[in-house]
Amino acid sequence: MTEAIAFLQPNAAILARRKEIVADLAELVPAERLVHEPVELVPFETDGFLAYRRRPLAVVLPETTAQVASVMKYCHRYGIPIVPRGAGTSLSGGAIPQEDAVVLGLSAMTRILEVDYANRCATVQAGVTNLSISDAVSADGFFYAPDPSSQLACTIGGNIAMNSGGAHCLKYGVTTNNLLGVKMVLVDGTVIELGGKALDAAGYDLLGLVCGSEGQLGIVTEATVRLLAKPEGARPVLFGFDSAEAAGSCVADVIGAGIVPVAIEFMDKPAIGICEAFAKAGYPLDVEALLIVEVEGSEAEMDAMLADICDIARKHGVKTVRECQSATEAALIWKGRKSAFGATGRIADYICMDGTVPLSQLADVLRKTSEITDRYGLRVANVFHAGDGNMHPLILYNINDPEDAARAEAAGMEILKLCVDAGGCLTGEHGVGIEKRDLMRHQYAEADLAQQMAARAAFDPTWILNPSKVFPLEGRG
Amino acid sequence: MTEAIAFLQPNAAILARRKEIVADLAELVPAERLVHEPVELVPFETDGFLAYRRRPLAVVLPETTAQVASVMKYCHRYGIPIVPRGAGTSLSGGAIPQEDAVVLGLSAMTRILEVDYANRCATVQAGVTNLSISDAVSADGFFYAPDPSSQLACTIGGNIAMNSGGAHCLKYGVTTNNLLGVKMVLVDGTVIELGGKALDAAGYDLLGLVCGSEGQLGIVTEATVRLLAKPEGARPVLFGFDSAEAAGSCVADVIGAGIVPVAIEFMDKPAIGICEAFAKAGYPLDVEALLIVEVEGSEAEMDAMLADICDIARKHGVKTVRECQSATEAALIWKGRKSAFGATGRIADYICMDGTVPLSQLADVLRKTSEITDRYGLRVANVFHAGDGNMHPLILYNINDPEDAARAEAAGMEILKLCVDAGGCLTGEHGVGIEKRDLMRHQYAEADLAQQMAARAAFDPTWILNPSKVFPLEGRG
Repeated sequence: MTEAIAFLQPNAAILARRKEIVADLAELVPAERLVHEPVELVPFETDGFLAYRRRPLAVVLPETTAQVASVMKYCHRYGIPIVPRGAGTSLSGGAIPQEDAVVLGLSAMTRILEVDYANRCATVQAGVTNLSISDAVSADGFFYAPDPSSQLACTIGGNIAMNSGGAHCLKYGVTTNNLLGVKMVLVDGTVIELGGKALDAAGYDLLGLVCGSEGQLGIVTEATVRLLAKPEGARPVLFGFDSAEAAGSCVADVIGAGIVPVAIEFMDKPAIGICEAFAKAGYPLDVEALLIVEVEGSEAEMDAMLADICDIARKHGVKTVRECQSATEAALIWKGRKSAFGATGRIADYICMDGTVPLSQLADVLRKTSEITDRYGLRVANVFHAGDGNMHPLILYNINDPEDAARAEAAGMEILKLCVDAGGCLTGEHGVGIEKRDLMRHQYAEADLAQQMAARAAFDPTWILNPSKVFPLEGRG
Repeated sequence: MTEAIAFLQPNAAILARRKEIVADLAELVPAERLVHEPVELVPFETDGFLAYRRRPLAVVLPETTAQVASVMKYCHRYGIPIVPRGAGTSLSGGAIPQEDAVVLGLSAMTRILEVDYANRCATVQAGVTNLSISDAVSADGFFYAPDPSSQLACTIGGNIAMNSGGAHCLKYGVTTNNLLGVKMVLVDGTVIELGGKALDAAGYDLLGLVCGSEGQLGIVTEATVRLLAKPEGARPVLFGFDSAEAAGSCVADVIGAGIVPVAIEFMDKPAIGICEAFAKAGYPLDVEALLIVEVEGSEAEMDAMLADICDIARKHGVKTVRECQSATEAALIWKGRKSAFGATGRIADYICMDGTVPLSQLADVLRKTSEITDRYGLRVANVFHAGDGNMHPLILYNINDPEDAARAEAAGMEILKLCVDAGGCLTGEHGVGIEKRDLMRHQYAEADLAQQMAARAAFDPTWILNPSKVFPLEGRG
């Protein structure tokens, strides 16, 4: 296939020393935690951004912070690139390695170290999956809020790297709003701690800076996250509309009125069809756009908020309103939504865009997105976090047809530029990764970009950590 | 008086060029926006941390971002320190100048540039006061959440520099949780924009890093902040306890149960007496500790949450519970709390500490705080944001008695070390400033501190911006 995105030229001197490096790494981690046979490296060649792949030099899967530190100290000494990896679910290629890199996988660090209800937090190793945090505290009535669709697989370390969101982040915020502290290994192997159980940090908010830095400032090995009490009740409600624009305008008016439900998710007709066929959730098939609005609290609270939302929906000509009648039905509605990417994968290859826009622009951007994909002759399914203005057009294509793949990538880039031009952002929760690296110049002026790179250099002056990501390859500071 | 805190030695070459610098600055800002006569400089010698004062070289009060940029470009060229200043309400000396510095005051930049309900945000100049944002949108049913006690005077620029909180931040978060974007001038005069109206930022979260960076990374001239819809109703309730420990344990159990009221404020007996004498709020005078708990929402929601809180309070032997009966009464209850510092100032000089602790440590730290002040023979009044674990012991002393002042400072430092040792932090919302600079080594290991200074150097490599603050003078990187 074609490769629109350039990779860094691998360092030949490092490639030539591969055997020696593998032997050195074998001194630093137990044998079963070092992967270096070509066939065993295959699973580490790519991540959720399947269009690109590279075989890394080796993979280490440490079990302790000390092992992470020793590997980083070693790589730092010899200038060997390090690509951190959680579960490899990144949709922007954040964990795609380069040929001269050691992949540092956190998937073996899966212990929940402490659950502390008195301070309403849990401390976990970076390889713990998102959902397993909630699972560990659910019986006691608590949960961890950010809920990316990949929450069954994705790790908290990866969530921190990408500042992951999810459907319920409209009310509860994204990872950065639910992260209290981390233990992190700097590029030279120094271990630092940022934040903790108490409010705020003295001096600069390095914790906030690290969250969303895509593994370029250090490697997080432990995280302390906020736990929240489960609500008394929760109820998803389906609102069907005759047009995507009407649904988009309805969302903007709900949020503009200051109403904050737990979630407002959007699906257009193609997405409704795909998800319904997979999950049998009972989505209406006769509408052009569907909103899943979840409210929570006591019955009275949910009724009151829903009444306000229904008033606004009627003003936008809502066609069908269906309140969910049981926990089973609610689970199916969410199963359909959360399986959207997987269900789409059953019918076609796709790339998932992740732009955000100010809510006032939502309806307009939806319309223009259709115009772009029509022009390229591509099918698109829209399924996204509407309340946050975080759009996820899934552009369908055939990964084995180079021309189709090139068209899909080109259309995707146009859509992201559209989001930026509407006052939005290239990425809401999937990160820049390798995918959107070259669009950073569309988002930022040179001075903005230079300042970001200067911040990076304060942590990793020689660009060893995940070096091919986030910033355009040309003009690096 | 004694000066326990050292100042940087002023640069003699800059002092010698004072006249010339003033003449140059007069070219950059209108005449009425340049302050340089000694008598006119007096109000700029100190801030809310009254124990220290220095006369700056000159003060400029620009009206535009372009003027800010031109002054910074000039100072950068000649290595002249710049001390940014909002309303000068800092309690940690964040705006105290040094003798070779130009104070860059934002108090003339007071325009509200845009109110955008569709995107639920407002864009304002940095000199706009905190309260005037809420005032501008109140009639439409909205407000800006962070509410420091000084909100009538303090500016949004200062709030961003210190990541200010306030009583209602328990539910709504502090400044960083309510800030969407800034326009900022870098040290060399380059203007950058961070964040905006859409969710998230591509690349690093520099906006998060800037928030709380005490004017050392750049000078914010405009801010886009989140607006929230006012709740249906709100009701403060007074809970009186026989001991500070019982009140502290009650707070920990409320939060530990996952209940999040809008505010949980704490006052001990001395604070109750001081505030009641000033505000006549009807606080009970026969208790050792008082919690002001505010709930909000519909009547049914408030009743339900209060019932849960009352159950927990009873377990901790609550002595009196008084629900507020009217809006007038509610206003008086908050007037008493928010005037605590001013009311204390009527009876004595004080220094206000700002440590945070994990909630599970609250009762224990309160007890040990009393032991410390008893040992020093000092009076203390505790009035603080208990739900956040953000303590504010006010240590009373006589500013004209050098020995008393030295005792107060020494006791304050012991209390802050106590907070850190309990797993907490030197500062919740007042910043490190000049006051807590030398305690940063107690909070952080050398590697942590070095990483913060490296982040600073990525913005201001020659330490021109507010240079005497945040970091210990010795061992700067």
